[in-house]
Amino acid sequence: MASPDQSDGLTTRSAKVKYASRLATRSFRFEHREFLAEGPQAVREALKVPGAVVEVFVTPDAAERHPELLPATVPMHEVDERVLKAIADTVQPQGIIARCRFVDHDLADVLAALPRLVVICADIRDPGNAGTVIRCADAAGADAVVFTGHSVDPFNPKAVRASVGSVFHLPLVITSDTADVVAQFKAAGLTVLAADGAGSLDLFADEQALAAPTAWLMGNEAWGLPDDVAALADHTVSIPIFGRAESLNLATAAAVCLYGSARAHQTR
Amino acid sequence: MASPDQSDGLTTRSAKVKYASRLATRSFRFEHREFLAEGPQAVREALKVPGAVVEVFVTPDAAERHPELLPATVPMHEVDERVLKAIADTVQPQGIIARCRFVDHDLADVLAALPRLVVICADIRDPGNAGTVIRCADAAGADAVVFTGHSVDPFNPKAVRASVGSVFHLPLVITSDTADVVAQFKAAGLTVLAADGAGSLDLFADEQALAAPTAWLMGNEAWGLPDDVAALADHTVSIPIFGRAESLNLATAAAVCLYGSARAHQTR
Repeated sequence: MASPDQSDGLTTRSAKVKYASRLATRSFRFEHREFLAEGPQAVREALKVPGAVVEVFVTPDAAERHPELLPATVPMHEVDERVLKAIADTVQPQGIIARCRFVDHDLADVLAALPRLVVICADIRDPGNAGTVIRCADAAGADAVVFTGHSVDPFNPKAVRASVGSVFHLPLVITSDTADVVAQFKAAGLTVLAADGAGSLDLFADEQALAAPTAWLMGNEAWGLPDDVAALADHTVSIPIFGRAESLNLATAAAVCLYGSARAHQTR
Repeated sequence: MASPDQSDGLTTRSAKVKYASRLATRSFRFEHREFLAEGPQAVREALKVPGAVVEVFVTPDAAERHPELLPATVPMHEVDERVLKAIADTVQPQGIIARCRFVDHDLADVLAALPRLVVICADIRDPGNAGTVIRCADAAGADAVVFTGHSVDPFNPKAVRASVGSVFHLPLVITSDTADVVAQFKAAGLTVLAADGAGSLDLFADEQALAAPTAWLMGNEAWGLPDDVAALADHTVSIPIFGRAESLNLATAAAVCLYGSARAHQTR
């Protein structure tokens, strides 16, 4: 571990620093299939995935606080606070950032693992929602989260942050064709349930619909699932509303649906 | 309804406009017990609460789009886009803002209504979380949301926005002493359950604990419930984690707990 005065000499103008900072941009992320994990918690989870971390940028302070995050096997660059902030998307990167390789999977790999619970995010746009859905899916024991259509990518810095490490915990799939994904899960024997405020089944009253291996299809935060996409599912399912709210937001709806499935699978 | 050339002549320097814009500040809100509801959806819900709306600011465009939001009984000021933006907290106020009176209630009123499901937010700080918890509580049929300690107030503009109208749907209580609130709900016969990742009961395995009228005690988004606060509850309850996530975030945890209660009450 280098001491502060033996730093790499990286400045805000260094090519390595500029490259890393450009990973905030979707097109640059996809061109290079790399992204940033910011903060000790995200870096810790990234390091648990073999081959995920390309290199780590760390301030002397953070290096002292987190010696466990500086394994000899990963290139480490000691940088000053100003350089770290130039790389970071967050205002408070907490002294450490890992440049990571995309950790997404092919749908075929997910299917081969005989999933019992997955989430398909169709055209979800808010990165905070995407990260929170990944975190909920992880907590509920889901086997994968699939992003289709024009969804935000799960390696967006805000999504990574909102996932609180969960982007490194379960398989993520990035693809475009929602109909094809639904068809493949159906062919693999999963029941596809579309979460829809106007759903024909009720999450509680029709709980038996949750017993089978399930792919939850969640739509955009503003307009939900278009009719032709909802129609791809085996059933549309609504969360009962007992008060006067019109609906739940995407992340809380996903949490209630996924835990509904987890509960049904557990008590089967 | 005034036509554009018969406007009140309010400018960004008018006292009325400056006053309204200052309601973005907590101290000013509490001093005057007033807040802003921005956008057609929030204004619509505000107008359903008798006496809640003091006055409405609206652009000519929005007035034309939403004639139903301009009742004769409430003072209405037609303003240009620039004035509306000077009042608004949002970048996109969508042409209409209502200045509202605080719609909070005394705890005694809530207790008198024999509540079966309430949420106590102890020291929750993020206004988006506060609003989302209110929305979830509304959806799950809760009878009140109580904000204690140093919690953000539910009339913060971001909280109002995240609640999507639900701040106007169920009683909100703002008070300081968490222990007193817990004691009063207990005395009224409610079981107080503290949501806690290290809880001694499991939300699913110990579902019978949800059958009674329940007050959920939710802690701060970063540090949860301090031990001495959790100890006030009848039980601490954890949401089972089936994957590798350490926890859920506050709003999704609240959604899962509240829907757990709603389900248990429904099937009792």
